[in-house]
This record gives sequence, structure tokens and C-alpha cells, in this order.
Amino acid sequence: MDIMVNQREQAKPQSVPIIALLTDFGIQDSYVGVMKAVILSICPAAKIIDLTHHIPPQDVRRAAYALMTAMDYLPPHTIVVVVVDPGVGSARRSIAVKTTNSILIAPDNGVLTYALQQRPIVRMVQLKHYRLNNISNTFHGRDVFSPAAAHLAAGVSFEELGPTIDRIEQLKMPHLDLSPTVIEGEVIDIDGFGNVITSIGRLAWDADDLLILQPRFLSAATPSVTLQPERCVVLMGDHTFDLSVTYSGVGIGHALALVNSVGQLEIAVNNGNAADRFGCSVGDAVTLRID
Amino acid sequence: MDIMVNQREQAKPQSVPIIALLTDFGIQDSYVGVMKAVILSICPAAKIIDLTHHIPPQDVRRAAYALMTAMDYLPPHTIVVVVVDPGVGSARRSIAVKTTNSILIAPDNGVLTYALQQRPIVRMVQLKHYRLNNISNTFHGRDVFSPAAAHLAAGVSFEELGPTIDRIEQLKMPHLDLSPTVIEGEVIDIDGFGNVITSIGRLAWDADDLLILQPRFLSAATPSVTLQPERCVVLMGDHTFDLSVTYSGVGIGHALALVNSVGQLEIAVNNGNAADRFGCSVGDAVTLRID
Amino acid sequence: MDIMVNQREQAKPQSVPIIALLTDFGIQDSYVGVMKAVILSICPAAKIIDLTHHIPPQDVRRAAYALMTAMDYLPPHTIVVVVVDPGVGSARRSIAVKTTNSILIAPDNGVLTYALQQRPIVRMVQLKHYRLNNISNTFHGRDVFSPAAAHLAAGVSFEELGPTIDRIEQLKMPHLDLSPTVIEGEVIDIDGFGNVITSIGRLAWDADDLLILQPRFLSAATPSVTLQPERCVVLMGDHTFDLSVTYSGVGIGHALALVNSVGQLEIAVNNGNAADRFGCSVGDAVTLRID
Repeated sequence: MDIMVNQREQAKPQSVPIIALLTDFGIQDSYVGVMKAVILSICPAAKIIDLTHHIPPQDVRRAAYALMTAMDYLPPHTIVVVVVDPGVGSARRSIAVKTTNSILIAPDNGVLTYALQQRPIVRMVQLKHYRLNNISNTFHGRDVFSPAAAHLAAGVSFEELGPTIDRIEQLKMPHLDLSPTVIEGEVIDIDGFGNVITSIGRLAWDADDLLILQPRFLSAATPSVTLQPERCVVLMGDHTFDLSVTYSGVGIGHALALVNSVGQLEIAVNNGNAADRFGCSVGDAVTLRID
Repeated sequence: MDIMVNQREQAKPQSVPIIALLTDFGIQDSYVGVMKAVILSICPAAKIIDLTHHIPPQDVRRAAYALMTAMDYLPPHTIVVVVVDPGVGSARRSIAVKTTNSILIAPDNGVLTYALQQRPIVRMVQLKHYRLNNISNTFHGRDVFSPAAAHLAAGVSFEELGPTIDRIEQLKMPHLDLSPTVIEGEVIDIDGFGNVITSIGRLAWDADDLLILQPRFLSAATPSVTLQPERCVVLMGDHTFDLSVTYSGVGIGHALALVNSVGQLEIAVNNGNAADRFGCSVGDAVTLRID
Repeated sequence: MDIMVNQREQAKPQSVPIIALLTDFGIQDSYVGVMKAVILSICPAAKIIDLTHHIPPQDVRRAAYALMTAMDYLPPHTIVVVVVDPGVGSARRSIAVKTTNSILIAPDNGVLTYALQQRPIVRMVQLKHYRLNNISNTFHGRDVFSPAAAHLAAGVSFEELGPTIDRIEQLKMPHLDLSPTVIEGEVIDIDGFGNVITSIGRLAWDADDLLILQPRFLSAATPSVTLQPERCVVLMGDHTFDLSVTYSGVGIGHALALVNSVGQLEIAVNNGNAADRFGCSVGDAVTLRID
């Protein structure tokens, strides 16, 4: 059995290599299409998943959160290309990070920080090889990151991409502060439905309908906290929100707080847009008070 | 020959299983990307078609129309995942419907109604099995619908998804009323060009340049109506529109009525935006008067 | 070796046929999804690349530029379907153009002009065959262009699409005028970051940090020009911009001119939006002055 596992580990490239893309390029131009053209020129067998291309321009923190939400659901051995790259053309490095079940390729600007939290890193390299012949100063998604991913998908080994490095840039973690009676966090994302997503997580309901908080943006050694939902109230600005299990736990048009699909505390309006109603932005303070 | 047909019918999964997605998730977040990641984790061979992810949030009727427009063009045995799901997390059921040439997977909220009109249903089930291990209360597109589709694509039989059911929710049909001199309908969609699409259809030009109306949202027994285009005028609000065969049948910037690409009566402006010019909305009354 | 090359040339269809799509359909409706459904119905093995679907409605010139930027990066033998088609349903022809390494399918409205510049054409045909059975007057992307591409991908020969033609519509070239001291051009595109892209190109830095201009929209016989960057200044309206090698060659929020990823002169703001700041539009005059 061990031998079979080893054989599978060595079986690279996979029969269906998968490359996932996460950028701030939008889709109004052909930038993303050209990245895909480069990938399929090098590795015609690759399957490409668009995670999103609508990160707000140059917003490394929003990209870091979007990547984090996808990590647990990627097929094994997915190669993720993240291009939110305000420093393109500058001296910032291009990097690749190999974890136990995926490879992440990105500019070295901290965008991988949240995704790599509590996730074992096998090796990190600086991208030096397997680029296009002519490298522009403005579009490394096409010239550096996509070719690296496609060559990996086509069978190049991780080590061939460039020299091993031992540290990469780290993003500041979102604000999250625990005390026995108050948990303080901040808005870290607003989704397309206007749901307001906070740094308070990872939350999960247990079998006794208690809420277990295993803090995500703190040290892995931070103990988990058990919350009684009927004693919790969520505060944002002048507004308070009760915890609900589902959107439909309140009437249509009513506001609530709930656990979102990746375990973060979210403020929402059932069939409505919470961000518009409450006028909130990324970075706003959100508090969970335990009475 | 009969034997060969039977063998092909039994050959499941197809060599290239195809899954089509239709949601209101938008693409600014990673929700759709994560659904694709889940699908390819379970069935790496699947090909995924994005029908659209820009249904207005929670607008089940617009989704029902968008699905209807695609049905005739899907590859045989396509598995369609429809996630416009205002009741996610509530007691609403998750369902799958097998027709003679496709499988539709959706929340049981009526979103399949228009697509299933006049289309034979082979079997319907409630989705009970082949879900992810942990099911969130907010994202069944990831946890329930995508896994069901992917397992079907990977070879699970339709019957294994869950128990057979004998009825599903039905959406109210769009308004359509026929009399000898007036056909009354309503706006059911406005597309990205600002074309205003009505419930009056299915229309087709015959060889004698007459217009044949085989009503779509009425009983299948409703007889067809033959219209002489030069005696027809279309009314919306205070405006009247002549029937034209093509957009370019009128000058650039002029308004017209014509038969759209799925046979519905449409009000348009040649190289312009009719919805903006006439300020109309889904649900507005449209009349075709026969003089 | 020659024999092997010949054999490869004859090996059609490729093992992985690739179809790239460029339209003004947007993605809020199911139009693009339906085109993909038609393609995969005919050629399930095809891989589809979305170049972009967000060309401004009916803007043939913007589409021509977007196509040009992708041409050098397409996999060999890619079939490109371009549907920006203000004349759909009129007498305008539908065409396919075979170059030495790709096939372009489009309405005959000039949209291929920039892509075909200085690129050898092998053959051109009018699309007459391999359409859907029923052709609408409003959606040839579905009924004419996608089926032609898919049948090519499935092995139909180029010549079978229809009769050979010897000329196609040409778009007016963007304004570009060279004199010893002034190069006059115009804005030809504004991308999703607000970068302002001009007709002045194709520019490239040489090994001595000089800028070589090989004019793109002029006769192929036009000699190249060597520019000393420190003697160049770019003017647009009342504003002047210095040439920089990278965005980060100036401080965050500062404006600059640089060579974009396809060699065109671009006006940008480092981590900002130049089009918003300077209020410019496609067609505005831009001058590169050599002091």
C-alpha cells in the first residue's frame, strides 16, 4: 500500500493537470484569455479553472482572502496562479510554493499568506526559468507566471523552476482579538450579494448547536472557544445582529449574522444586500459580544 | 442497428461528460471557481460550460428564461446545474430531473419550469446522496449541487442520487393571452444589448413570409396562429413598433420589433439600447395588435 | 525531417483542437454559453478559450485591437471566432481566413484588419456550409460562426466551408504619423485598469536602452525609428508624460508613459487609473515629441 501511494506521488504530470487562475485583470480585456492561450500553447492537456479575475485592482488582501476560500476545495495537485501584482516590473521576486497538495505561483507580495496559514509547505522557489523568451515589464501573468504553471503541468519538476528560497513576504493578518466577553474583528470582504464577511472565524456549529471558534488568523496554538449562540450578539457601527443558522432564519429583508460557507462570521440581509444597507467597507470594525 | 443504439444509450458516463452551470453568483467572488474545483475533484474528465452567472440575485424567473433559451442547444446528456437559490438552508428540497436528453439539477423553487415545458420528463429525484461531507447552510452550489452533477458525470446512475419524487414546484407562467385581434404579453427579460424580450412566442417565419405563433407558455394543445406581418403592430407603453425581419431592416438608431434567436417577440433599437431608450422593465405589458 | 514536418502539417484535426472566442455579447445572458454548447455538441474534444466577451457593443475597432493583442500568443492552429457584428442579418458576408498558424472566423466587417497586418494569408472563404439547420436573423454567433469553427475542429477541411474569396473588408487604420521630431497617434483602447493605449507602436527596448519603433499601422516597408528615451516626451491634451520602463519607475499615484505588453505606447498611473484621471477617450490625440 505504501508503495502504491509512492507511485502515485511520483506520477507527474497527472493525467489531467489542473491550473487555477486568480487575478485582478477583470475580463473586459484579453489579458486572461492570453494567459490561457500561453498555458495551452505549452500544455494543451491542461484544464483551467477561473477562481476569479475580479479582485479589486492591486488589492493584495482581497486576493489573499479569495485564495483562502478556495484552498480546501481544489483538486489534488492543482497549480494555482495568483496575479495581483502592483509591483510588476519592479525588483519584487516571482515565487512558487509547494504544499502537500497544491502548488501556488505568485508575485512575492504576501498574497499567499492566508492560504498558507496552518498548511505545511514542502518547498519554495524563486521563478527563474521556464519563462517566455521576451518578458514585458507590465504583464508577468503572461510572460512568467502562466509559463511556469504550464511547464509544471507538462511535467517539469518543481525544483527546475528556480533556486530554493527560505522565506517569502508575509501579509499583515486581519485584526482578530479574543477576550472572554468580546471578540473583535474587521470586515475582510464584501461579496457580490453584498454579504459582509469578517475576520471572525473559523466557526462551526457542533452537534449540540453550540458554535465552536477555532481562530484562523491567530497562532495555530490559540485554543478554540465555545460560544452559546443565544448569548452572542454581533455589532457593526450602530447596528446589532442576532446569530442565525441560515439566511431564511429571519424574514425576507431582515438582517442577520451567520457562519458563511468557509466558516467566517458574516453579516447579511435575507434576499437583500447588507453592504448597501449598512454602508460598510473592508476594514470596518465588527464585534461579537458574549453576554 | 437497433442494438448499436441500445449500446450507445447504455454507455454512461460519456467519453466527454459535459456539465453546464447557470447561477446568480456573479464572478467577482470565487464561488463559481470553487464549484468548478469541486466538480473537477470528483470528475477530472468533465467539461464545464458557463451558461451565465449573472442572473439578477435570487431572480428565479430570469433564471428560468435563461435556462429555456439554452435547452435546445445543449450537447446530448448534458448535466445542467442551476443555482439561483433564495431558500438555501431552508427546508426547500434539492432535486434532479432527467429528460430524454439532459439532466437538470436545482433547488426545488420552480426554476426549471420554463425549460421543462413540452419536454418529456423521464424521472425526478430528491438529492439525498453524493454530497460533500460537510454541508454549509449558505452554499449548496458547492456542497450539494456540484457534487451531484460531478458524480453523475463520473458514472453514478441517476437513481442513486436519492428517492424518486412525483412532483416539483412550478413557477407561474409569464402572462400570455391570445384573442383574434390582440395578443397580450409581458417583458420577461432584458439582455446585455438592451433588447427587450417578451413572453410572445414561439414565433417563426414561414416560407411565405408569414409569422407562425406556436404559444410557448400556454397549454401544449393551444393551436398555432398565423400572422400577416404587415397587419401587425407592437405596443409597449405609449410606443408602437413595426415588425422587421432583421435589426438592419430599419436605420441605425431606429426602433423595431422582431423575432429573437429563440423565437420570442423582441423590441430592439438597431445598434442601440431599447431598454434604456424606452425605460422599460421586466413585467411591463407588451401587446401585439392585429389590424 | 522534412517528411515528418509534412506529416504533422497534414495531421488535422489536432489531438486537442482549440477554439478562441472574442465577442461583444457580455456574459450576463446565456449567449456565450449557448455558443459553447453548440461547439461541444459538434466537437466534444474542443478546448475553448474566452479571449473576451466585453468588447463595447458593436465596436468593431476595439475588437480588432483586442484580437491583435492575442494573435502572437495563440496555440498553433487555434480557430478564433470573432463575433462583433452590427450587421447581423443584413447582406454582410460571413468569412473565414486561414493564416499560416491560425484560422479566423468572423463577419466581414473589417474586424480582422489589425490582426492580419503583416501576417501571411493562406486562403479566405465565405462561410456557406456547416451551419445549423435553422439560422436566426439575430444570432449568427450560434448559428453560423460557432458551427463552422466546431466542424473545422472536428476535422472538416477549410476549403469545405465555402467558396474562396479574394478580398475582405478593411478597417481604416488608426491614426499614426511619423516625422523626424513628432510622432502623432491616437488612443485606441482603454483597459480595465484605466491604462490608455495608443496607436504608437510597435515599440521595444534594445540592449542599449534605446527604444525601437517599428510602426504597426503603416506599410510594412516603413523603416524603423530609433528613439532616445530621455529626449522623448508624450503629450495628451494639456498633460505631458515622461517615458518609464516600468509602472514602478514612478511613485505610487504618479503618471507615466511606457511600452505596454504588446509594444504599444501606453499612458498609465502607477497603482491608479489614468483614463479616469485624465478624462480621455478612444480617438483622443496622443503625441510623442522628440526634443
